[in-house]
Amino acid sequence: MQRPLILIVNDDGINAPGIRKLISIMNDFGEVVVVAPDGPQSGKSHAITIEDTIRCDKVKIDDGPQEEYSCSGTPVDCVKIALNKLLTRKPNLCVSGINHGSNSSINVIYSGTMSAAVEGSLEGIPSIGFSLLDYSHNADFSEGEEYVRKIIESVLEKGLPEGVCLNVNIPKTVEGREIKGIKVCRQAKANWEEEFDERQDPKGRRYYWLTGKFVNYDKGDDTDERALENQYISVVPVQYDVTAHHAISKINNLLS
Amino acid sequence: MQRPLILIVNDDGINAPGIRKLISIMNDFGEVVVVAPDGPQSGKSHAITIEDTIRCDKVKIDDGPQEEYSCSGTPVDCVKIALNKLLTRKPNLCVSGINHGSNSSINVIYSGTMSAAVEGSLEGIPSIGFSLLDYSHNADFSEGEEYVRKIIESVLEKGLPEGVCLNVNIPKTVEGREIKGIKVCRQAKANWEEEFDERQDPKGRRYYWLTGKFVNYDKGDDTDERALENQYISVVPVQYDVTAHHAISKINNLLS
Repeated sequence: MQRPLILIVNDDGINAPGIRKLISIMNDFGEVVVVAPDGPQSGKSHAITIEDTIRCDKVKIDDGPQEEYSCSGTPVDCVKIALNKLLTRKPNLCVSGINHGSNSSINVIYSGTMSAAVEGSLEGIPSIGFSLLDYSHNADFSEGEEYVRKIIESVLEKGLPEGVCLNVNIPKTVEGREIKGIKVCRQAKANWEEEFDERQDPKGRRYYWLTGKFVNYDKGDDTDERALENQYISVVPVQYDVTAHHAISKINNLLS
Repeated sequence: MQRPLILIVNDDGINAPGIRKLISIMNDFGEVVVVAPDGPQSGKSHAITIEDTIRCDKVKIDDGPQEEYSCSGTPVDCVKIALNKLLTRKPNLCVSGINHGSNSSINVIYSGTMSAAVEGSLEGIPSIGFSLLDYSHNADFSEGEEYVRKIIESVLEKGLPEGVCLNVNIPKTVEGREIKGIKVCRQAKANWEEEFDERQDPKGRRYYWLTGKFVNYDKGDDTDERALENQYISVVPVQYDVTAHHAISKINNLLS
């Protein structure tokens, strides 16, 4: 029997420790092809490159058996070019990450890592985004590895519902509190309170850095934020149908 | 009584004919502040600028009463910087567009125009994205203007449900077939079949242009694509909660 074909992508760039760890895990599950950005693409969401050219070159980064391509485009570009130009058959699984930092709650809509998984699911491929709640370059990406492997095994065996991918966030071990298990959740209602750091360049012209702090307004017990606070891995099923179906009749009334 | 404060943004850039038309309409409804990209930002989705600085400078483009800022960032950056640095009070309405080309069905997740509206709704502001199904620079942006005005009046008067913004697409008049009215719809199940145009640069190195053709797989009568085909303006309520709530129990079974 042919081994499963697994596409790996991320948004932190092909050299990031998070994707290197994911590659080492996935090599145990199948034939791995990596198509990842040549540099950081965090916060790129579902952006695609249409006003510029895209480069995509074969590279050799470590001694693993995987095939790798470094791409100048966004995470979603990586998935598109993998499926259309680089892979000779449809992959059995698309995994994205492991992201350096959380993609829980509202972060899902800003995340390049999660958008790559969404793009995979759009193409009918069971897709999962993995993120670790640790922004540091040298985070310990073996946190929760047994659960990551369990999720991958289940999805490879059973697939995913049509139009749905998984947003998996892994808590960081704090003060020896071990990961307690997996919780399937909904996206918490949370947001960023932006603070623009205003500066002057050497010519006296104003510029800004976007910064902010994360605020969780949601006290529900069934959210990803709650699961993570309680040292569980959160799994949110994510869909690309963004229609607010519940609001259709209200909008009909409003416009009539 | 104070006139409503209206924030205008787009993804085609501050000089695009579509936003100039939208400004001229909105000046009739309230006090207008424009914060828009300094160049094309199509396909930028919900991307934010976190690895680079952002410029945002006051500009004067025409003789209208509106205040305008040209921003180096993405459409979503424009909304964030408007709300946090430029506006002195919370706007009563955020409108985005008029986009040069369709943002119906799956285009909603790639669109910078629609992501700016989603960002507005995230901040609790009634928000609407407008798009015209005509990619040409000199399209006739007065198509459907009476309906655009009707939608704006209704939303200014009655607001929108929490967490919901509107994705409004306007058909192009073809062979004298006039616009028949407005239909509130769901997002059609459609997709892009990519075709990467592969070329060689003068040094012989390979590069790609992303192109593709749009394919609608959805035969439903209640979709935006169907409404547009039948010469109606489509209005899809859009939400930023991307949880596939219907799949939570399935995923629980799958992982147990």
